[in-house]
Amino acid sequence: MRSPIPDYLAQVLGSVESDDSGATADYIPELASADPDRLAAAFATLDGQTYSVGDCGVEFTIQSISKPFVYALALADRGFESVLAKVGVEPSGEAFNEVSLDDLGRPRNPMINAGAIATHSLAGPVGIDPQAGFERIVDGLSAFAGRRLRVDEEVFESEMATAHRNMSIAYLLRAYDILDEDPAAVVEGYTRQCSLLVTASDLALMAATLANRGFQPVTGERVVPEPVVRQVLSVMTTCGMYDAAGDWVTQVGIPAKSGVAGGLIGALPGQMGVATFSPRLDKHGNSVRGVRLFERFSEDMGMHMMDVPAPAETVLRKNRHVGADLRLYVLQGGLRFAEAERVVREVAQSSPSEHRVAFDLSHVHAIDAVARRMILEVIRRLSLEGHDVYLVDPEEVIPDPDPGDGGRVTVVGQRLTDWLERLRR
Amino acid sequence: MRSPIPDYLAQVLGSVESDDSGATADYIPELASADPDRLAAAFATLDGQTYSVGDCGVEFTIQSISKPFVYALALADRGFESVLAKVGVEPSGEAFNEVSLDDLGRPRNPMINAGAIATHSLAGPVGIDPQAGFERIVDGLSAFAGRRLRVDEEVFESEMATAHRNMSIAYLLRAYDILDEDPAAVVEGYTRQCSLLVTASDLALMAATLANRGFQPVTGERVVPEPVVRQVLSVMTTCGMYDAAGDWVTQVGIPAKSGVAGGLIGALPGQMGVATFSPRLDKHGNSVRGVRLFERFSEDMGMHMMDVPAPAETVLRKNRHVGADLRLYVLQGGLRFAEAERVVREVAQSSPSEHRVAFDLSHVHAIDAVARRMILEVIRRLSLEGHDVYLVDPEEVIPDPDPGDGGRVTVVGQRLTDWLERLRR
Amino acid sequence: MRSPIPDYLAQVLGSVESDDSGATADYIPELASADPDRLAAAFATLDGQTYSVGDCGVEFTIQSISKPFVYALALADRGFESVLAKVGVEPSGEAFNEVSLDDLGRPRNPMINAGAIATHSLAGPVGIDPQAGFERIVDGLSAFAGRRLRVDEEVFESEMATAHRNMSIAYLLRAYDILDEDPAAVVEGYTRQCSLLVTASDLALMAATLANRGFQPVTGERVVPEPVVRQVLSVMTTCGMYDAAGDWVTQVGIPAKSGVAGGLIGALPGQMGVATFSPRLDKHGNSVRGVRLFERFSEDMGMHMMDVPAPAETVLRKNRHVGADLRLYVLQGGLRFAEAERVVREVAQSSPSEHRVAFDLSHVHAIDAVARRMILEVIRRLSLEGHDVYLVDPEEVIPDPDPGDGGRVTVVGQRLTDWLERLRR
Amino acid sequence: MRSPIPDYLAQVLGSVESDDSGATADYIPELASADPDRLAAAFATLDGQTYSVGDCGVEFTIQSISKPFVYALALADRGFESVLAKVGVEPSGEAFNEVSLDDLGRPRNPMINAGAIATHSLAGPVGIDPQAGFERIVDGLSAFAGRRLRVDEEVFESEMATAHRNMSIAYLLRAYDILDEDPAAVVEGYTRQCSLLVTASDLALMAATLANRGFQPVTGERVVPEPVVRQVLSVMTTCGMYDAAGDWVTQVGIPAKSGVAGGLIGALPGQMGVATFSPRLDKHGNSVRGVRLFERFSEDMGMHMMDVPAPAETVLRKNRHVGADLRLYVLQGGLRFAEAERVVREVAQSSPSEHRVAFDLSHVHAIDAVARRMILEVIRRLSLEGHDVYLVDPEEVIPDPDPGDGGRVTVVGQRLTDWLERLRR
Repeated sequence: MRSPIPDYLAQVLGSVESDDSGATADYIPELASADPDRLAAAFATLDGQTYSVGDCGVEFTIQSISKPFVYALALADRGFESVLAKVGVEPSGEAFNEVSLDDLGRPRNPMINAGAIATHSLAGPVGIDPQAGFERIVDGLSAFAGRRLRVDEEVFESEMATAHRNMSIAYLLRAYDILDEDPAAVVEGYTRQCSLLVTASDLALMAATLANRGFQPVTGERVVPEPVVRQVLSVMTTCGMYDAAGDWVTQVGIPAKSGVAGGLIGALPGQMGVATFSPRLDKHGNSVRGVRLFERFSEDMGMHMMDVPAPAETVLRKNRHVGADLRLYVLQGGLRFAEAERVVREVAQSSPSEHRVAFDLSHVHAIDAVARRMILEVIRRLSLEGHDVYLVDPEEVIPDPDPGDGGRVTVVGQRLTDWLERLRR
Repeated sequence: MRSPIPDYLAQVLGSVESDDSGATADYIPELASADPDRLAAAFATLDGQTYSVGDCGVEFTIQSISKPFVYALALADRGFESVLAKVGVEPSGEAFNEVSLDDLGRPRNPMINAGAIATHSLAGPVGIDPQAGFERIVDGLSAFAGRRLRVDEEVFESEMATAHRNMSIAYLLRAYDILDEDPAAVVEGYTRQCSLLVTASDLALMAATLANRGFQPVTGERVVPEPVVRQVLSVMTTCGMYDAAGDWVTQVGIPAKSGVAGGLIGALPGQMGVATFSPRLDKHGNSVRGVRLFERFSEDMGMHMMDVPAPAETVLRKNRHVGADLRLYVLQGGLRFAEAERVVREVAQSSPSEHRVAFDLSHVHAIDAVARRMILEVIRRLSLEGHDVYLVDPEEVIPDPDPGDGGRVTVVGQRLTDWLERLRR
Repeated sequence: MRSPIPDYLAQVLGSVESDDSGATADYIPELASADPDRLAAAFATLDGQTYSVGDCGVEFTIQSISKPFVYALALADRGFESVLAKVGVEPSGEAFNEVSLDDLGRPRNPMINAGAIATHSLAGPVGIDPQAGFERIVDGLSAFAGRRLRVDEEVFESEMATAHRNMSIAYLLRAYDILDEDPAAVVEGYTRQCSLLVTASDLALMAATLANRGFQPVTGERVVPEPVVRQVLSVMTTCGMYDAAGDWVTQVGIPAKSGVAGGLIGALPGQMGVATFSPRLDKHGNSVRGVRLFERFSEDMGMHMMDVPAPAETVLRKNRHVGADLRLYVLQGGLRFAEAERVVREVAQSSPSEHRVAFDLSHVHAIDAVARRMILEVIRRLSLEGHDVYLVDPEEVIPDPDPGDGGRVTVVGQRLTDWLERLRR
Repeated sequence: MRSPIPDYLAQVLGSVESDDSGATADYIPELASADPDRLAAAFATLDGQTYSVGDCGVEFTIQSISKPFVYALALADRGFESVLAKVGVEPSGEAFNEVSLDDLGRPRNPMINAGAIATHSLAGPVGIDPQAGFERIVDGLSAFAGRRLRVDEEVFESEMATAHRNMSIAYLLRAYDILDEDPAAVVEGYTRQCSLLVTASDLALMAATLANRGFQPVTGERVVPEPVVRQVLSVMTTCGMYDAAGDWVTQVGIPAKSGVAGGLIGALPGQMGVATFSPRLDKHGNSVRGVRLFERFSEDMGMHMMDVPAPAETVLRKNRHVGADLRLYVLQGGLRFAEAERVVREVAQSSPSEHRVAFDLSHVHAIDAVARRMILEVIRRLSLEGHDVYLVDPEEVIPDPDPGDGGRVTVVGQRLTDWLERLRR
């Protein structure tokens, strides 16, 4: 059987192919002369499978899409406090090249140029020299992509020749002591960062690394820690699409970032990374067909972050008395706070009179930290009330359970039926 | 056993109780003289359970927390296009009472006063008179709360006497034809809306209605349709906390809204509604202890919207050859795009040679629309290739499955073991 | 002989007559339907002569041209301190209807609507009721014009019906406590003020009153005191032409004010008042042909305030020894600081050895306060050195001269030749 | 006799001496360590006399006071159109170092840094290299001062090391194509310009050159043409004192410019140049005691540009019939439009019936261009009506009078009495 996913991607691509509205960026010849008809889309799953259609092997410069990844590196290298002291997290409601400094001279957020230039200077350890700082960034972005990225020297040279506005921004940041380095050197490094070459497939994997809690899906490398990923995704949500942030969040609802060469990425936490490539831009500087593709993906696949999933089946599959003085709670599905709350409530309301109480986790396929703590607390309270509590957990959904504070639990590694069988004997 | 949840809530409340920083709003005597030590927190689950601690029965005026709900009513009553033509969705980066109109004279978003005043005029059908429009709003907000809300006439009178800035805003909106009505009448209605009395428990249920796709958890009433809920939650995410939106999204990560009387709500899609009440405000106009409580809730319960859940166990429990020329795929857990993709991939790669192919959904506890479509497409393709395809689905996870376009499937309502037993015979 | 001045005016009018660029204000029907071809210009001299050409008898509403005059009344009635506490004097660089409040909530200047609305409320004594306040303004503006002005009730009604933006401004001023009164009543009064009917000839006389140190040229009434005039002319200079202030000052260089009905005035201190009327406006809201007329007047008549006059002939006509032990200084022309300095210098350098020193003022036609003080100080010093000092001043250019502080002077009321004749005898 | 003027200056200086409020600029050590107690004031008359008190021989850097003079050079070298295309003339209402570009990217005016940097690049002919451009500026400013100025290299080096904000501005101007040159080279030249050393006496002479229609009072050199002077004085009026422009115009009313090293100049057209020096600055960046000194000068000497002079004596000394069929008009004083108009009116109204009409200008000490044209037009009209017209003008107040267009006049070079005597014979 042929997978329907490439067919789906091809069909969606086909549906936007004829849209030739917008225009390529024209501030340097290399971008102006890019083939405007290029079109690509790629999905990368969290276990490293990539689906690519269209011009997915064509390299283009990463441009502003480098911003969230370098922000991630800066947070990882310098810590949140150091970075937040230099760059804010508030949406600016302004175009990408606006200066937008707050009262302290801090750029409003790391997705506008001012913030990205400041962020560039924060990758690597304090006091790193510009050359080494840039190497840190190439290493880091390559780790996200899973392959060694290289600079397009022609684009770099061309952008440097017209980088007046970024030079202006960098000197202003220097005036406010947001930058300590030579502004010209920082702009050179930043421009070089923007000139790194990527394909749509690279970008999908880079986004998937964010969606995968910082682990690169193919190499398995932990590129940045989880709190950094959360911060980066949050900022992409509110600031990733420039002055169209609100439209994007309401209509697409995927943390995203666009680049002036036509790239666009989205990260679906826990699901996958998505990337598109189409050089013609709208007035906000976002890829016209890229935006349309994401609108389709969001709608077709229900990927809007504010889509409330339909209620799951009840988490409590069974609550029943079993012979041999046993109350049995059979749980199922995934457990977050909401599901654990229902278990807690059921136990609290039913107040089991049996001496033994057992929780069967055999049908639970996922449990998050808060749900685990809640279940353990229930166990602790029951054991303090004098019950013998059992956790039937053959697949170790809760490894090494410790109710703490005087609570006790007996872990049952067998299947429920086997254990009940044994009990009965 | 006593439920640990009220204990948890009480403990968290206790941890912020001594914080008396900030100050009550002082622009009218009724707010200035509010008891600043009031403190309450409430959780409301999607099946209508409410956990309340502290001053959860104390009524206070809803103020700006009415904004997202009236926005929801306007969207429901007038449609997206009409509302978006009058009020934008972009974060303003400005304080709550800034005028913040965009180039078209539209308020930037419905969470600032300008947008909320415009939104107020959009509840109910076109041409509704102010009195009836206000009734529509009381009815709507009462439906969210699940009980009849009433106006605090003293607060209303007092606010009207100093509503100069809102009058100024309303006349400006009138000048830009965003308002068609008499500005003074609109401000009166809006002020009355802000003077509706609620408790923290009411607010938790109102938030839970949003978290529950628009269904009121207790009454079961569908208050607004799902696309409206998605829009409202999106706008709360980017604009709910005024000029602290970016801080809030990165640190708390819950769609929220605060009010000047000290209320604060958060909606956790698919999980629950949360509300707090504490009258002292920070410089942004948000409740000092309310913000701290939410920071605790978010951290303790892993409720940040960008927290990537740990990867679930594999969705494919089994993929094996069974006697009688059968290939059996046993699925488990919750299926979204990412999980369905793995199933699709496995089937595509393994290309079953058996004549019969069966998918066992007995251990699947939830499946969303896109995953359902993907599984059905796999079934269609297999059947077109000549396979007999079976869907073992005793709990009707996929009711009335139709692969479409020439595809065929046989639904098996029995348990897998029973069916296999029968097959073998 | 026919005066060439009307001919000049007619010729200049003819030179702009065919210019039909711009458009009449269209926010109310009364202005939109004004005859756009109306064209008038008037000069009013400081002794009350008026030269009028074109439609100088046609009445139109004064609109914003009322602003400097009501500002003058407010300064006269409440004093500088009270008025400056409510309205600033800085150019705003913004359009007429921008809100433009400074950090204290003060409108930037009295020439933008926000400032004019605040100023309106400051005419008459503190606590005056709105009706009486409006009467004060009609009386005051009528005193400037030299005839009783009346309101165009149709324009007034029409403007009130669309005064949303001014209502917005007034409520904002109320919110900042710049206004203490009911904002709606203030806007009504302000709109009525703007609806007063004037002709170009009226406006020329009103401007001439400012040019004449506050004295109405025809009636001779002192309408406002001199420091008020100085303040009003200064503010007209920097703020009178809205966001085109810099262009106006550099190119025309006459303190001016325009109105949306097509009027435009200029005040040439010490010389005359000028007014034009032509309803089509440019994008700044200034009369197109009015601006062109003023450019012509300024250029043809050398009326730019920064035109440095060619140096006058030497102030010291003679410095010579006369028989009978007399040093004679014959002064001529007008004496300001610069001219008096030359006299002072000459006397100091020549150190007259004669016992008698005489200053002949017969040919001096004007002397300002500082020059008078300087001449008297020279006299004082000479007399303290032992000289007998004489002031030949048959026309009492320096009435009652008092050198002060021990100085003495003998005033000679005769003509120089007669006095010298007598001396010789 | 000792001149009272130095005494006056010393007395005024003494009255502000004890004011030690404000602080020296501290962004570079050279300014921070300046002696804050330095105090100087100088007057320079239009014939080159300088009155200096206090530290008038102390050199300090010219800083922003160079701006109006370099603006004058740019206007003279490139023409108005070229300069206005790059730098506007509107007050910005902002601090000196704000970027303040208008919609076209033009700096708002040449008195803020952005405008001054652009202006710096416009001195000298198009295409001049930076070194030569700087020489042009030193030559030009030296011509204004009347002596060769030199750069303080220490201040220059120190300012360059912290010129981040100006670098930022220059790169922004480059981005908008306001600058065509290398921004770093322009900032270097501009900083060097600001580091030129001057004394208060130099500055008084520089200001006096502006007050003297562009002629240096001592050297007599025409430094820039008159229209340039008018433009520079106009811009100083509205933009010279940064965000305090309105306060300055209303309270002092003298075209002025301040510098961060403590200098302050004022130009009184047709009268003199004034300069003060005192390093402590107020929050606007203007010298505290300098501002107070100018307030005193303006008040004491009636030098506010909007002070309306008291009306001069009547311009028509006599209008009478003399024997021999002659109508005699004896004029006196200074004639501008207003005075000439009275003559014109008198002649038009009196319609002389005599065959001969004579105008005696013996007592006229100044006449401007428009008044001359008006008198000649009256003569022309009278001669066309058949009169023989005589101009008694022994001092050639109107040299080579030509009524034009068929008009004829007989010039009488004798004194009136002699001529009348002759006539009678």
